[in-house]
Amino acid sequence: MIQPVILCGGAGTRLWPESRGARAKQFLSLTGSDSLFQQTIARTADAMRFLPAVILCGEAHVAIVREQMGRSEAGLLVEPMPRNTAAAIALAVAQADRDTLLLVMPSDHVIADTSSFQEAIAKGAGLAEQDWLVTFGITPDRPETGFGYIASGDALGNGGFAVDRFVEKPPLEEAEKMIAAGGYSWNAGIFLFRAGRMRDAMQTHCPEVLHAAEAAVAAGAREGNALYVDAGTFGDAPSVSIDYAVMEKDGRVAVVPAAMGWSDLGSWQAVHALGASSDDCGNVATGDAVLLDCRACLVRAGDKRVSIIGLEGMAVVVDGDDILILPLSRSQDVRTAANARP
Amino acid sequence: MIQPVILCGGAGTRLWPESRGARAKQFLSLTGSDSLFQQTIARTADAMRFLPAVILCGEAHVAIVREQMGRSEAGLLVEPMPRNTAAAIALAVAQADRDTLLLVMPSDHVIADTSSFQEAIAKGAGLAEQDWLVTFGITPDRPETGFGYIASGDALGNGGFAVDRFVEKPPLEEAEKMIAAGGYSWNAGIFLFRAGRMRDAMQTHCPEVLHAAEAAVAAGAREGNALYVDAGTFGDAPSVSIDYAVMEKDGRVAVVPAAMGWSDLGSWQAVHALGASSDDCGNVATGDAVLLDCRACLVRAGDKRVSIIGLEGMAVVVDGDDILILPLSRSQDVRTAANARP
Repeated sequence: MIQPVILCGGAGTRLWPESRGARAKQFLSLTGSDSLFQQTIARTADAMRFLPAVILCGEAHVAIVREQMGRSEAGLLVEPMPRNTAAAIALAVAQADRDTLLLVMPSDHVIADTSSFQEAIAKGAGLAEQDWLVTFGITPDRPETGFGYIASGDALGNGGFAVDRFVEKPPLEEAEKMIAAGGYSWNAGIFLFRAGRMRDAMQTHCPEVLHAAEAAVAAGAREGNALYVDAGTFGDAPSVSIDYAVMEKDGRVAVVPAAMGWSDLGSWQAVHALGASSDDCGNVATGDAVLLDCRACLVRAGDKRVSIIGLEGMAVVVDGDDILILPLSRSQDVRTAANARP
Repeated sequence: MIQPVILCGGAGTRLWPESRGARAKQFLSLTGSDSLFQQTIARTADAMRFLPAVILCGEAHVAIVREQMGRSEAGLLVEPMPRNTAAAIALAVAQADRDTLLLVMPSDHVIADTSSFQEAIAKGAGLAEQDWLVTFGITPDRPETGFGYIASGDALGNGGFAVDRFVEKPPLEEAEKMIAAGGYSWNAGIFLFRAGRMRDAMQTHCPEVLHAAEAAVAAGAREGNALYVDAGTFGDAPSVSIDYAVMEKDGRVAVVPAAMGWSDLGSWQAVHALGASSDDCGNVATGDAVLLDCRACLVRAGDKRVSIIGLEGMAVVVDGDDILILPLSRSQDVRTAANARP
């Protein structure tokens, strides 16, 4: 059996103004009625194959996690402060039996092709049982410079490969070379491993992270299905990513490449690209929106009434009293606007 | 002495969503802190030269007229239903002495050069005393197709001309010919005449309008400084413009051309053109607006927070829960959006 570990601690501003504060991106309904977090829970809800999930989140998000998880039997591990992915995963490791397989997943991505996802998990589980630290690589369809890449090495059978190396977010030229060469996939931050195997790896590669997390779980306070980990001890954990702390250093890391309709929805442009068109002009509109003579626009009207005329390739995002308007091609500049707002 | 007659009955949608219902364009602050209506009152507030004004407005606008007129001693003539400019002016005529000069002005225009305006009024008053129906023509600076034109005929001395003919809103080619030929001015709907002279003209050209208005004033109900004219009789007045009903038919109509910094602010484009730039990129912004890398945009943020990135020549107008976005060059299409909204 596999225990899903859902990382829910993010609070990005790339989808400002909708994503902010207690209502982070993973809690938004960006591709349908369910939020990305709810979709992540549903993806591993089959009780025949998965144990109840462990959700890692910050205190500010406990209320919305509870609201959105509905009748899920998942447990919560509440982090008193953010300490990056290595420490979060160490918390999950600290509360698990050594032989449980842990499936670590970000909660703010889209995976459209669930059966490909399940198939990849099944392949990865075989490798994880053999004490590989397994990462799932997304088969790239463009020379994206915003993601890290994983180079596949020797084939391990059944669709898995030993990882040759991890590549940091590359410049465009290098990304194009990797796409042309083949054998590279995007690092999507989805991992599968035996809990004990990861504990041992952390003991070797990042013992401070592991010990802080174990102490924080031991001294934590339980409230129903939630464990509030201890702030005094957890605060000692260095803030490092699991990639940097473990995956790039360990000698037995595997990758299972998969095309599973994955997107990190990292910009309003990505939200537009994945949205269902509301007309035959490529517009994606939610809420009370009137579009006259517009093409390829994204409108998220919130609880307001948006009327647009003669626009092309534009994003209009309303959230409460905030209204953001920019060309979709400038989506990467949203943070600048977010930072200009208190 | 001259009595100002301020026509305040309009309820256009060209500046939707700000202009609508009880808050028509003339009551908006579009070029500064005072509304266009307040600017119109102030323009003829000099008690040495002008009598207290008469304001013609509909019932829906009485409250905002009172609020905005402040301590003005103007009287109100309240129309129970709109009946166009001929009937409105007939009401003003009906309540005036025959020898009073009436200066009829729309309340939703801008006149930036007040001294030119006053100078033109002084010239026109001389002609009005000689029983000319005087209209003030705006010296055109472009071949505008949205206005009517007035062709000047014989010079009458002191800057006035007999009107040769009125030209309806022309096609572009004709407008260009008129500009090239010279001797044409825009019809701005500003008139000056002796009340008795206009009464006689109406008796000749549109007696039904005159009689309905006179009966409506006679049967009206006075409330403080307001006369609510009688609905039953006023409803009998045909709905025609003063141009069509009188000015185009009368044989003694004069025009005083003047360049007085006039604009009808008939579109968001015009509001942008007349607005004070809030930066050195030609942006005109009011309210809580953050503009990043934008040029030549109009932002009216209302009580919301607007953030725009990478836009050029765009209008963003927020009013209550309505948000309108369009290129300034498409300003004429605002009505379509307004009509799509309840």
